[in-house]
Amino acid sequence: MKKKISDSSIHRLSLYFRALSLFEMENYETVSSKELAKHEKLTPAQIRKDLSSFGSFGTRGLGYPVHELKNKIASILGIDRSWRVALVGIGNIGSALVSYKEFMKHGFQIIKLFDNDQRKIGSNHKGIIVSDIKNIQQELKESNIQIVIISVPATVAQNIVDDVVEAGVKAILNFAPINLRVPDDVILRNENMSMELEYLSFNLVNYSQEDDIEEV
Amino acid sequence: MKKKISDSSIHRLSLYFRALSLFEMENYETVSSKELAKHEKLTPAQIRKDLSSFGSFGTRGLGYPVHELKNKIASILGIDRSWRVALVGIGNIGSALVSYKEFMKHGFQIIKLFDNDQRKIGSNHKGIIVSDIKNIQQELKESNIQIVIISVPATVAQNIVDDVVEAGVKAILNFAPINLRVPDDVILRNENMSMELEYLSFNLVNYSQEDDIEEV
Repeated sequence: MKKKISDSSIHRLSLYFRALSLFEMENYETVSSKELAKHEKLTPAQIRKDLSSFGSFGTRGLGYPVHELKNKIASILGIDRSWRVALVGIGNIGSALVSYKEFMKHGFQIIKLFDNDQRKIGSNHKGIIVSDIKNIQQELKESNIQIVIISVPATVAQNIVDDVVEAGVKAILNFAPINLRVPDDVILRNENMSMELEYLSFNLVNYSQEDDIEEV
Repeated sequence: MKKKISDSSIHRLSLYFRALSLFEMENYETVSSKELAKHEKLTPAQIRKDLSSFGSFGTRGLGYPVHELKNKIASILGIDRSWRVALVGIGNIGSALVSYKEFMKHGFQIIKLFDNDQRKIGSNHKGIIVSDIKNIQQELKESNIQIVIISVPATVAQNIVDDVVEAGVKAILNFAPINLRVPDDVILRNENMSMELEYLSFNLVNYSQEDDIEEV
């Protein structure tokens, strides 16, 4: 039996990884929970709790070893290896994602592209020839794709996801603004950039710098 | 004194808004916390708790009035109005965001674009003429911009954010893969699409369908 880690803990691990990469570049050998906390605007207790749940790191009084902790977190997140990724839908967002350096930097290699537009099928995007969506099941299997990114219009997204699931892919990142249905053994994440702006507008509407804010 | 709402509660409000929009399209007049919970894969208790913290909604036994609750959440999130948004950096991601329909749909109107590339300055993107980054402070003020989206390389992001802050903008969405410094009265959100893939790789590495998973 494994314990399920909360979404926000996983998110914080990604942040710690980035912070530790910076500390490493600046030649820090160790870092305290207090320093990490300051960097991430979290409490030292939160950081100690997150890290302790993945085993014992660090020595009381000496802090965490930067290089070792960074590698350990990379291993926990699965970004110490290469992932075979396919992207479906070479529109505005899809095209941008093919060139998105952060994916490559963390081991996510987009090696297959799919579209249904005859003008795009066969064209070359960053060295990858765009495949016809109608062959997606077969080609996902042949290329042993582990993660699929969906960046198609909402109206066609469910049909494509059904094909992706049928091909045996267990992890999907969805940019289409729609709730997709997947079986319980498939992990689906939705990315909607508008929701980040809604976080900002919420704060603009509800708080101003003059307010005292009490954390609950 | 106002109470600070957690990031994840704000995020869930955005999800509820989308779910209620769907229920409204399907002509539901009321929806129960159980139905909303099923739709969002949350517990009914979580939903009642979130909604009760914004005032009393719904009638025991009858559920929540869909249209009224949707409008109330829109008002809480500040998406019942128009926001004046500027975008800096017309690269791959920036270009995609200018055409991103979800922004417009929720009231986020990109009305100013900035770049430092002479080939881009003066060009027309979706009806907006790209301005020279060197005039950003003055133009943000003149256009009364409320939210700025940063999609520039990490190396130049801090300088640009300093200008944006100097111009009096209080809300920034950052796509550059770097931790930016802003004063306490400015709200900054970072968007890093790689972190969503890291959530997937974490799950692929740590869980498989055969595992029993205990929620902690």
